[in-house]
Amino acid sequence: MLSNTPVNADAPATVTTGPIRGSRKVYLSPPGHPHLRVPFRQVTLSDPREAPLNLYDASGPYTDAEAGIDLARGLPPVREAWLAARELVRIDGRDVRPEDNGNLSADAVVPACPAPVALRRGLPGRLVTQYEFAKAGIVTEEMVYAAFRENLGREHALSDAAERRADGESFGAQIPDVVTPEFVRDEIARGRAILPANVNHPELEPMVIGRNFLVKVNANIGNSAVSSGVAEEVEKLVWSTRWGADTVMDLSTGRNIHNIRSWIMRNAPVPIGTVPIYQALEKVGGDPLKLTWEVFRDTLIEQAEQGVDYFTIHAGVRLAHVPLAARRVTGIVSRGGSIMARWCLAGHRESFLYEKFEEICAICRQYDVSLSLGDGLRPGSIADANDAAQFAELETLGELTRIAWDHGCQVMIEGPGHVPMHKIKVNMDKQLALCGEAPFYTLGPLTTDVAPGYDHITSGIGAAMIGWFGTAMLCYVTPKEHLGLPDRDDVKVGVITYRIAAHAADLAKGHPAAKLRDDALSRARFDFRWEDQFNLALDPDTARAYHDATLPKDAHKVAHFCSMCGPKFCSMKISQDLRREAEAMEGMAQKSEEFLAGGGALYVPAA
Amino acid sequence: MLSNTPVNADAPATVTTGPIRGSRKVYLSPPGHPHLRVPFRQVTLSDPREAPLNLYDASGPYTDAEAGIDLARGLPPVREAWLAARELVRIDGRDVRPEDNGNLSADAVVPACPAPVALRRGLPGRLVTQYEFAKAGIVTEEMVYAAFRENLGREHALSDAAERRADGESFGAQIPDVVTPEFVRDEIARGRAILPANVNHPELEPMVIGRNFLVKVNANIGNSAVSSGVAEEVEKLVWSTRWGADTVMDLSTGRNIHNIRSWIMRNAPVPIGTVPIYQALEKVGGDPLKLTWEVFRDTLIEQAEQGVDYFTIHAGVRLAHVPLAARRVTGIVSRGGSIMARWCLAGHRESFLYEKFEEICAICRQYDVSLSLGDGLRPGSIADANDAAQFAELETLGELTRIAWDHGCQVMIEGPGHVPMHKIKVNMDKQLALCGEAPFYTLGPLTTDVAPGYDHITSGIGAAMIGWFGTAMLCYVTPKEHLGLPDRDDVKVGVITYRIAAHAADLAKGHPAAKLRDDALSRARFDFRWEDQFNLALDPDTARAYHDATLPKDAHKVAHFCSMCGPKFCSMKISQDLRREAEAMEGMAQKSEEFLAGGGALYVPAA
Repeated sequence: MLSNTPVNADAPATVTTGPIRGSRKVYLSPPGHPHLRVPFRQVTLSDPREAPLNLYDASGPYTDAEAGIDLARGLPPVREAWLAARELVRIDGRDVRPEDNGNLSADAVVPACPAPVALRRGLPGRLVTQYEFAKAGIVTEEMVYAAFRENLGREHALSDAAERRADGESFGAQIPDVVTPEFVRDEIARGRAILPANVNHPELEPMVIGRNFLVKVNANIGNSAVSSGVAEEVEKLVWSTRWGADTVMDLSTGRNIHNIRSWIMRNAPVPIGTVPIYQALEKVGGDPLKLTWEVFRDTLIEQAEQGVDYFTIHAGVRLAHVPLAARRVTGIVSRGGSIMARWCLAGHRESFLYEKFEEICAICRQYDVSLSLGDGLRPGSIADANDAAQFAELETLGELTRIAWDHGCQVMIEGPGHVPMHKIKVNMDKQLALCGEAPFYTLGPLTTDVAPGYDHITSGIGAAMIGWFGTAMLCYVTPKEHLGLPDRDDVKVGVITYRIAAHAADLAKGHPAAKLRDDALSRARFDFRWEDQFNLALDPDTARAYHDATLPKDAHKVAHFCSMCGPKFCSMKISQDLRREAEAMEGMAQKSEEFLAGGGALYVPAA
Repeated sequence: MLSNTPVNADAPATVTTGPIRGSRKVYLSPPGHPHLRVPFRQVTLSDPREAPLNLYDASGPYTDAEAGIDLARGLPPVREAWLAARELVRIDGRDVRPEDNGNLSADAVVPACPAPVALRRGLPGRLVTQYEFAKAGIVTEEMVYAAFRENLGREHALSDAAERRADGESFGAQIPDVVTPEFVRDEIARGRAILPANVNHPELEPMVIGRNFLVKVNANIGNSAVSSGVAEEVEKLVWSTRWGADTVMDLSTGRNIHNIRSWIMRNAPVPIGTVPIYQALEKVGGDPLKLTWEVFRDTLIEQAEQGVDYFTIHAGVRLAHVPLAARRVTGIVSRGGSIMARWCLAGHRESFLYEKFEEICAICRQYDVSLSLGDGLRPGSIADANDAAQFAELETLGELTRIAWDHGCQVMIEGPGHVPMHKIKVNMDKQLALCGEAPFYTLGPLTTDVAPGYDHITSGIGAAMIGWFGTAMLCYVTPKEHLGLPDRDDVKVGVITYRIAAHAADLAKGHPAAKLRDDALSRARFDFRWEDQFNLALDPDTARAYHDATLPKDAHKVAHFCSMCGPKFCSMKISQDLRREAEAMEGMAQKSEEFLAGGGALYVPAA
């Protein structure tokens, strides 16, 4: 396993397809935009009084029973007509070089995805990025699409939207009753949201990341020197979006990296992020000291042409910050951060990522690659949380944010890491203040170090909290974190855990539509509509399997109890009986209120 | 499975024994108390510079390699000498009646545990409960034991204890640098802590529950009408305490309930709680309307004589509160609450638990059974959180708390349930204010309803937060919550999840000793001491198995990388190289500070 042998897998043939159990894919068009088809996962409920519930759906055509999936052809290019109408130039693109795939011999290279894509690039002085369009007051098709997608059932719940919002605590976020395309445009123009959408990723189903939208979740995939291959990686993309990943980062560090990415890009309905320094390091044989601006620049262009939607750039790791981390318990735990720190320190040079940041922005702008400013000095343990190194870097990220905006780029900021609960909020507050409210994108944070094997949970706690405080996207952590490479089950558990954290955050912020799903599921639970309860769950398969482990028969799916308490002790059954009795006793509620108002004494003097 | 057939299992023969991997049981004596042997789980580390770490250990003799376990003889009665010296009277005890075991025929009844126990009861006017001793200024052996147990390595970390505490946010808790027996006494006397310890449970290893101590975790076990038997239940007790449950509630509702409990009590090193109304309901054939004070009173005495350490009593569900819950989305979800609500409403009568509360206290005092005032009207969904019914009951619980104290009883308060994040803190604040700082004991709370199958996680988030805010004990939730009965794996995952929540809370409160374990594990991680990392984990077996899934060889246990990033991309390895380089460059840290202080410009004018 540790041989570093290139994975010479065949091109991927199959991935998981078909609807999530109990739901079906529907496409709806925003008012006035009949040509836009925005996907939702619709759950039809067994009680005719319950309207079907449309859930946010990041899973792409893979969960559409009608879609024909052919990985070699790629997904339908839903953005192609929009892009074709813009002032972009067609380009031939950079030739693939041997080092792009780790200098493998021809017979060891995995073939690239043959799906055709019309390569484009922006021109100086013309509108290219969503940020530039937004600043110019222009609402793009992507904005219309993403706005409609955010709303879910909100337009049907308008009557009490204000009440729901008032019921929450959003810490200064400004979540609207209904998301309009103009609201999306305005948030992007203010830099408070990004819509990652490379002009060379026409297959993308647009989505928006920002504090005033639904909290998003990122899943990481990628082969490493130790394991994993092509088929596995594309399936991980499909699998993680099936369970709710809104974006996917390809963190591959092995060989065949360029060609594997071509399969991922052409088959990705979600924004794909990368850390270009990983591939740049592969190109120089793995020695950080051999890294150069030229190799890095070439890698940016290579990946931007492939359609990568956002780049993590560790430009905040400056020479002067490195010694601040020297006395830490766990040093520098970001791969990109440690690579750059080593580069800086070895030659006692300022980071080329920092020095060339304006050139990086100029490249990203041409393709509308969003910048994700990496937190290379994030704490890797509770002991190192919120230290001088971390916050020195955050200040630099604020400075870089403004430079990115000046160059017309979309930008978000990456955050920690390992942080105990009481030190989480200051991370959010500082980020908002220092980075001009640019979206925050955090890894966890893990709230304790003592549970390797359960770090999806140690970090899910921190993720829910920081999402509530205002983080726009949460990078998932799987149970294998710190221990090994996640497998299929780990990826699913990681994504579901982070969907829980994101949804708990939406609820706490007072998001006007988030509670609709909780309420529908709770009504199903109280009514013993077991099938509805399963189908509304984040993971219908597991909910059903757990129920059936004790009560497998179909008859139990309508039983007015479950195996936890059995029929005699079912509180919900007793409670239903109670409700019928209470309803029969007219005025009981009123009498009770009078009773309490009168001091609650059991006996009162006769009149 | 649904036949209601009594489980006629044989007496349990074996349970899980032996140390948790990578640690051994040690017993230490508090200064001046050589006869007390307080257990710890000691982890010896491979780096000779690292002192062995003593961890809190609730698992009892089962994890002692030297202990001979014989369930029929029960555990050693560590408290017997202390109890024998007190002013208690020996009693014969109530005769077991057929209804105690569900009216089973003699050949269907599981035999009771034959372990002998000297039955006792307190006298009027003499000191019986830990609360009475504490109020009288007397420090009991139980207090000395529990105090020493709480300290862990605190006495060795005194030099920076104040700093650690100041670094946290405890929301008004008053955690001392070192826990003394006198501090435990004072906290119990103030009603801010309880030490559940029935005089008929001599096998108990004493522990304390309160806001100024380590956050505790409860696990539920119990057979139901649908499943489970004797051997399974005793093993669940052993299994859940093995992974860190501090107390265990036996929620059995099936038959053989009395005799199964006898096996549990005689083999329980932790406090055992019950909900006596469950057994009372069994005695009247499962019809809430047939419940009477007499049946209930008899059940209290039966269970108190068996040694149960705390009773959940739903005395806060008053007649007038019931209609407040009538319009809820999920009604009344507490089993005890729904039973009592139905009883009240059917006869339009005030609850006998409320009316007879002083008599209940008088019984509990005789045996020092602590009261756990049940939240029968806790919300069962996000929609019902923090509603009028819930808070009306909490006010009543405050009133009952004072009555319990007046009768010399120890008392804690149960809390919700299903609560979105932004509504959690007010639960804690109200509980502290209304219930005179009596310990809060919450179930979760679950922060969203949309993830059946993952409710250990939806609730672990809420549990960590409310633990931070001041909850003294967290009742676990397993992945099967809402769906079915937990099996062995579910119990373990539930306990580990709640240990994470409790520990994250201790860290955030600024507990002076909690961070020692995180730091030791983080140092092991940074030094690539894989075995130490596994052994310090909450679950060493899973951490090791996850690591070995990718890198199984022994050589990889000392490898300076793991499968996540592989050798070239290991940030910790790069970071270690970096540290060596940085240390070689004298004064780098100082130079960096000067550099930053000077504005961070890369080039400065020549002098």
